[in-house]
Amino acid sequence: MKLPGQEECDTSAANENISAGELDSDHGPGHSPSGSSETNSRELGVSRDPPLFIQLNELLGWPQALEWRETGRWMLFEEKLEVSAGRWSVPHVPILALPSLQKLRSLLAKGLVLLDCPARSLLELVEQVIKVESSAERRGQLQALLLQRPQHSIQTTGACPCWGSTLPRKASHNEGVLLKEQHQNPLKQKLPPEAEAAAVLTGELGFLPQPLGAFVRLRNPVVLGTLTEVPLPCRFFCLLLGPAMPGKGYHEIGRAAAVLLSDLQFQWSVRRASNLHDLLAALDAFLEEVTVLPPGRWDPTARILPPKCLPSQLKRSPSQKRDVQGFSIPHTGRAEDRHGRGPHVPCAELQRTGRLFGGLVQDVSRKASWYSTDFLDALHPQCFSAVLYIYLATVTNAITFGGLLGDATDGAQGVLESFLGTAVAGAAFCLLAGQPLTILSSTGPVLVFERLLFSFSRDHSLDYLPFRLWVGIWVTVFCLVLVATEASVLVRYFTRFTEEGFCALISLIFIYDALGKMVHLTHTYPIQRPGSPGYGCFCQYPGPQGNESQWATAQPKSRDDVLSMDLGLVNASLLPPFECTRQGGQPRGPGCHTVPDIAFFSLLLFLTSFFFATAFKHVKTSHFFPSVVRKVLSDFSSVLAILLGCGLDTFLGLATPKLLVPTEFKPTLPGRGWLVSPFGANPWWLSVAAALPALLLCILIFMDQQITAVILNRAEYKLQKGAGFHLDLFCVAVLILLTSTLGLPWYVSATVISLAHMDSLRRESRACAPGEAPSFLGIREQRLTGLVVFILTGISIFLAPVLKIIPMPVLYGIFLYMGVTALSSIQFVKRVQLLLMPAKHQPDLLLLRHVPLKRVHLFTAIQLVCLGLLWIIKSTPAAIIFPIMLLGLVGVRKALEWVFSPQELLWLDELMPEDERSIPEKGLEPEHSFGEDESEDSELMYQPKVPEINISVN
Amino acid sequence: MKLPGQEECDTSAANENISAGELDSDHGPGHSPSGSSETNSRELGVSRDPPLFIQLNELLGWPQALEWRETGRWMLFEEKLEVSAGRWSVPHVPILALPSLQKLRSLLAKGLVLLDCPARSLLELVEQVIKVESSAERRGQLQALLLQRPQHSIQTTGACPCWGSTLPRKASHNEGVLLKEQHQNPLKQKLPPEAEAAAVLTGELGFLPQPLGAFVRLRNPVVLGTLTEVPLPCRFFCLLLGPAMPGKGYHEIGRAAAVLLSDLQFQWSVRRASNLHDLLAALDAFLEEVTVLPPGRWDPTARILPPKCLPSQLKRSPSQKRDVQGFSIPHTGRAEDRHGRGPHVPCAELQRTGRLFGGLVQDVSRKASWYSTDFLDALHPQCFSAVLYIYLATVTNAITFGGLLGDATDGAQGVLESFLGTAVAGAAFCLLAGQPLTILSSTGPVLVFERLLFSFSRDHSLDYLPFRLWVGIWVTVFCLVLVATEASVLVRYFTRFTEEGFCALISLIFIYDALGKMVHLTHTYPIQRPGSPGYGCFCQYPGPQGNESQWATAQPKSRDDVLSMDLGLVNASLLPPFECTRQGGQPRGPGCHTVPDIAFFSLLLFLTSFFFATAFKHVKTSHFFPSVVRKVLSDFSSVLAILLGCGLDTFLGLATPKLLVPTEFKPTLPGRGWLVSPFGANPWWLSVAAALPALLLCILIFMDQQITAVILNRAEYKLQKGAGFHLDLFCVAVLILLTSTLGLPWYVSATVISLAHMDSLRRESRACAPGEAPSFLGIREQRLTGLVVFILTGISIFLAPVLKIIPMPVLYGIFLYMGVTALSSIQFVKRVQLLLMPAKHQPDLLLLRHVPLKRVHLFTAIQLVCLGLLWIIKSTPAAIIFPIMLLGLVGVRKALEWVFSPQELLWLDELMPEDERSIPEKGLEPEHSFGEDESEDSELMYQPKVPEINISVN
Repeated sequence: MKLPGQEECDTSAANENISAGELDSDHGPGHSPSGSSETNSRELGVSRDPPLFIQLNELLGWPQALEWRETGRWMLFEEKLEVSAGRWSVPHVPILALPSLQKLRSLLAKGLVLLDCPARSLLELVEQVIKVESSAERRGQLQALLLQRPQHSIQTTGACPCWGSTLPRKASHNEGVLLKEQHQNPLKQKLPPEAEAAAVLTGELGFLPQPLGAFVRLRNPVVLGTLTEVPLPCRFFCLLLGPAMPGKGYHEIGRAAAVLLSDLQFQWSVRRASNLHDLLAALDAFLEEVTVLPPGRWDPTARILPPKCLPSQLKRSPSQKRDVQGFSIPHTGRAEDRHGRGPHVPCAELQRTGRLFGGLVQDVSRKASWYSTDFLDALHPQCFSAVLYIYLATVTNAITFGGLLGDATDGAQGVLESFLGTAVAGAAFCLLAGQPLTILSSTGPVLVFERLLFSFSRDHSLDYLPFRLWVGIWVTVFCLVLVATEASVLVRYFTRFTEEGFCALISLIFIYDALGKMVHLTHTYPIQRPGSPGYGCFCQYPGPQGNESQWATAQPKSRDDVLSMDLGLVNASLLPPFECTRQGGQPRGPGCHTVPDIAFFSLLLFLTSFFFATAFKHVKTSHFFPSVVRKVLSDFSSVLAILLGCGLDTFLGLATPKLLVPTEFKPTLPGRGWLVSPFGANPWWLSVAAALPALLLCILIFMDQQITAVILNRAEYKLQKGAGFHLDLFCVAVLILLTSTLGLPWYVSATVISLAHMDSLRRESRACAPGEAPSFLGIREQRLTGLVVFILTGISIFLAPVLKIIPMPVLYGIFLYMGVTALSSIQFVKRVQLLLMPAKHQPDLLLLRHVPLKRVHLFTAIQLVCLGLLWIIKSTPAAIIFPIMLLGLVGVRKALEWVFSPQELLWLDELMPEDERSIPEKGLEPEHSFGEDESEDSELMYQPKVPEINISVN
Repeated sequence: MKLPGQEECDTSAANENISAGELDSDHGPGHSPSGSSETNSRELGVSRDPPLFIQLNELLGWPQALEWRETGRWMLFEEKLEVSAGRWSVPHVPILALPSLQKLRSLLAKGLVLLDCPARSLLELVEQVIKVESSAERRGQLQALLLQRPQHSIQTTGACPCWGSTLPRKASHNEGVLLKEQHQNPLKQKLPPEAEAAAVLTGELGFLPQPLGAFVRLRNPVVLGTLTEVPLPCRFFCLLLGPAMPGKGYHEIGRAAAVLLSDLQFQWSVRRASNLHDLLAALDAFLEEVTVLPPGRWDPTARILPPKCLPSQLKRSPSQKRDVQGFSIPHTGRAEDRHGRGPHVPCAELQRTGRLFGGLVQDVSRKASWYSTDFLDALHPQCFSAVLYIYLATVTNAITFGGLLGDATDGAQGVLESFLGTAVAGAAFCLLAGQPLTILSSTGPVLVFERLLFSFSRDHSLDYLPFRLWVGIWVTVFCLVLVATEASVLVRYFTRFTEEGFCALISLIFIYDALGKMVHLTHTYPIQRPGSPGYGCFCQYPGPQGNESQWATAQPKSRDDVLSMDLGLVNASLLPPFECTRQGGQPRGPGCHTVPDIAFFSLLLFLTSFFFATAFKHVKTSHFFPSVVRKVLSDFSSVLAILLGCGLDTFLGLATPKLLVPTEFKPTLPGRGWLVSPFGANPWWLSVAAALPALLLCILIFMDQQITAVILNRAEYKLQKGAGFHLDLFCVAVLILLTSTLGLPWYVSATVISLAHMDSLRRESRACAPGEAPSFLGIREQRLTGLVVFILTGISIFLAPVLKIIPMPVLYGIFLYMGVTALSSIQFVKRVQLLLMPAKHQPDLLLLRHVPLKRVHLFTAIQLVCLGLLWIIKSTPAAIIFPIMLLGLVGVRKALEWVFSPQELLWLDELMPEDERSIPEKGLEPEHSFGEDESEDSELMYQPKVPEINISVN
């Protein structure tokens, strides 16, 4: 059914709207020139073609009461109108039946196709379209019908959708109200301003002798009255009407047309199509790429929820590599992202310059050029909430680690030092470091080392703080040597094997310590069993030889109450020990020194803070409450758990052990000033001998700092201003000297809190289609948020006296939570879990698709043995040398190359620098070239995940 | 490429193998006669066509080292060989690309099709197939190639698959070893003995000038050597070879062929196809029904796990209603199962006969005919494990409810009565009842009523057990009246609204009581705060006026130890109270009467048993441990939690409150015999007044018993021997008289434990394809398992003294667990949760697709108000009338018909009997006939679920 007007429109389209360069008759529609300008525009996130909102209006009620009603809408996913519930369905992957696509094709092939139609209103458009109908009477009927106002289900506020008119059948609303409703549609806010609409009109119209199909592309898109629920300029108009068809024929054909229009590839082609042939070719190209599910294996009525990430448009039809501009389709950096971890290190910054301090100079010069923008870029409201969030996290951290440090060092350091040190070191680092997004903090490994160092100095009767000062001095020296020799490039030898061993050991120490401290509490506050000697206690007053009369006269009333019983000749009463001492008596008996109920109550507090911290953390993934409430509960899980524990403790008022905080601003250790004396009671040669532990600490700090830096600078975070490995290490070294001099804790970069910092500064695309996740654009890289956080932390020092209401068991619970969280985040633990899982219940991990299960188990077993050896060493008197043992993991990993093939190591771990070179481009494919092709693996599996290594356990 | 031989095969097939009746040239292949004999065979679960195992062998290594390797296999779902991991993938829904199906079609259309080929060995088959090749040289090469042995990846034991030969390239195994491996394949056990195989051979063969396609159906299937990994007779053979093709062309075409063959509809057609045309028509019919996912919205490499239930084959292509015999495809009784609950009641058994005791007589006569089979059907090993499982559940229940009853009635009844009553009543019921699968038990509602009755009689100083006896007598009378008047048919007025109100109230009472009892414990065992007067306690010996010398001489040593301090002139020591009393002294002071640590330790025990019971229950859905371990942990979650609590309590040895158990076989209440005296200390008129509470209890028992009976007799359980509502109620009435006379607890049917009983007696299809859930065949309906369980329970009475190590807080924890489990299982709670969920996070419930959210919330709010009113009544002195209020829910439900439309009530609740009649067949469709069609709702949503109502809370 070709009409004269059609050809006219076609030719005009070809001449006017598509530039000569874009018309490529050899390739036909769907093939865009893959010029470099287009690649650039894609990389900058600029989408040349505007996104399309597609609406399906169905003609219902034939033959009595015809009316148009919107029954579906599409952007990326399908939303279907639940008619009786009056709400939109959840966005879901549209599912079609093949026959409806084929019927659509034949309708279009026989129908009217107007490309670049010059109509400027709905009336003009309808007049163009109905030309296809030969009978004048039917033309009139059609025109009246097509100009009839459709019913929209506009979701005005919250969860309750309202019909465009309150009574669907009596659409006597005036135009103004409808237009207002159309403009108030919340969907409009979600769509980018340049978005265009496409309207698909379909339905059964009994008086038509044969099906009527029309596809119109408007030359200049205009808003077609209230045709679409959102007032967008309409680019495409598709009409599919006809006589009765069995089943829901027109509905399905209409859906097929809408789904087709929602396909980016098809959009690209149809915007550039010059005739019917191009249109059908685009449809055929779509059919070529559809995924087919066999009948009987999948219920076609089941709704498939949107996948977490869409397949890359670039990957489609690999033989042709079309370059499509999409509606914010994320381009996943697949090639560089085999483990979803990005390249192991940013290579440019980890090349050795060969000059002394060459890396440091390079870092400083690179960073200096960004310095002013580091403050200007912070001028965004998002930074306020980031400051609040990171401030609370930092303070929680300072309290927890300060409390634990005080515990471990018998009060040589404490919460006050922790606050002061965090503020000073953190602020200095934010001002000067290479990666100012890093949050400096007390970290697990350093805390473990400090505990060992303290035990060592106590066992050998050393003066701890002066000894520690010398250790700090030597660490600074060693670190400066490492900076000078550009040792940071060695970081590439720390593969996942090393990182995971490091993390697992530290996490286990955390868990062990937390549980150990709780067991220790039951010794301090013993549980009173029926036979245990904890019952007796009474208060003995000075005997007849003492000042008995004074007592008898001073306390005449208390003789009456139950606490002071008439005991005949006995100069005793049953006052509680505290009262007894106050009144000049002496508590006698074993029961006086035991405090009942404390042990079990402490255990309850411990479990409470652990479970609630865990539960609050998981609120984020629940379906309850608005997302802002979920986010607050999840982000501040530790703070809330601590507050809950304190509240419970205060409510019951039991004498649980509390956090030790000095009442005024002075060091926790009585009798020392803020400056640590360089020798104290130690012999002079200890300042030289301190070099040995300093070497160990230096290894630890190097590993901790650099592993964190690598994780933070991963490509997936799209940092623009680059890293500064050498400069960061230099700053850490100088700060260690400073904090050692002042007797403050040592600080390195903390992974989790820094990642949280970055996360709170994410820039994301705002406009997104229903069902689509917003795409990640980058991080607001600046120095101001960190600086403000640490200034606030400094001010909070004066809050410290309030902190003494915090019971220690609550902090132990948080400590346990940190250990468990860190442990459960690493792949090693997932592999340990595989040991306990029957093969058929194992998750469909990429790893298991590529490595035989036995080999996976062998690798896991070797890691377990290494961990066991490290644990044994940690438990011997040689515990302090564990940093060297951690470094030994690198050697073990090297030796593993004798056991596993490079292919296996690539999947189980990652490759070491020299192996990366030794394997040719294609060498990573399996031995046989059949079956296993990378394209078989789901793209979903390569997505950036949450940080895998919580190396700093905080 | 048609060969002479092909036509010959075709015609012979048409004449010999397909009976005339089955050939229906008008409808072509794929249309089976829908005769009644076929319907019957389906209903009896007889599958006429044998199931098909399909294997894909790929030719790899062109051109150097050609070898065949199995790379995929299909039954219902696809399993892909993970080449480098050497394991089979998880079974998943096969996903195809449309072009590969089209290429397959053209290959078949141009290729060789041999239907009913008479070949009897691989050699004969190959000779037939290679005739298609014109060049003699290539024929020879082809023959050698096709006779080459393929490499199979046979999973011999456990998780480790072994290659057919240890070194894949050197396939020098002798035939015997291969055949043995083939026969030991564990897959063979899973396949039914009548199963047949289909082999698809595909690959690139450079020397072929053009693609070669062949499809063979063997007249008599034979095992073709080691062609397939399982030694099954091969029915179909499909060869697809050709010159190089870009991408993984032949792999995909081979997969397409295999997926096509795995389709039941296609199998049916191709088994009956008489020529190429039929074959292609079957392929086209397949294409008509495929589900299409648009590109760019779904990653085609993502694996879709098998759905929990497959769509019904009957539902496919509704216009034609083909009748296909499937490979154990479950036919879900869709029409009768709108809410996944089956029809509300089995209608035949709930029709009023109109005669006095008419229903009872009917029940007895129906049941009598099955009586002998009720014992013979128990002769199956499955019944042993059912007995063990239900015995442990029953004993746990007897302990828990016995303990709680003892608690509630101040020891008027206890654990011993609970054991005795359970054994007597349960065994009698199993022998005589209408539904012997029912397990009689103490249930929540009756327990609540007994507690209220006891409080009432205590408040009015009545002699409890005699009063209770009269209540029991009246209940029996009322129940017999209900049986005589066939009142059980009224059960149809108990809609879900009533059931849920009932269940929610009882669950909340459970939760409230459990928490209340724990709070009460802190009064009995107060927590000792620093200022509280709990410290002082010492032991005073008889003074100087007493026998001092005796003491001094008798205990010279004890003066030395810490318990007996030198107190100067004081005749006192610090011995614990118990020791003090034993040695003739007198404990003095407030501290002597407090037991420290008990309150918190009880709380810990309470939380431990609650959390571990919950956690063990959820182990079933975890992925750890073999399924048998998971099942044990989950099934015995309460037992294990109780054991854990007892162990913890015994380990610490604290004096927690324990379960009260008489040390010998006599009633718990001291001084009464086993027979309750009819009057005791009560006035005579109380025997008449007892009719009032009896009326209330009768309502409660009727509701509790009948709701359970309805749930147990739902159609989804496919019971063959029918229900016995009237007979069951009769038995319960008689047993209430018996237990009241003996002073034992009252019993009615318990939903959850009875469902667990049925579940342990499920008959399921054994052979199932990987990824397919076994299909449910029915229940072993018999009386023996229940009887044995109760005999064992009776024997366990002599274990009762052991039970006194069970701490009460542990039982309270189980009590809480029961309440929470029951509450969380009802739809009402799910709707309450919807109130807290933002609309976009709400699950895609059918309910929400059909009823506006506001109306759903209104319905929930009305239920909440009803529940609130019930709770208020329960808290007033009028608490005992709560059964009438529960019945009032039926009235409220009736009144709801003024607020909600029948359509809404159908989705939110279900219809009452008269409404069911008032709504015409099609009246349930929404007002507008568009859009919403039942076929839009996923079949998955209609599946039988776990019991929705845990009405008896045990």
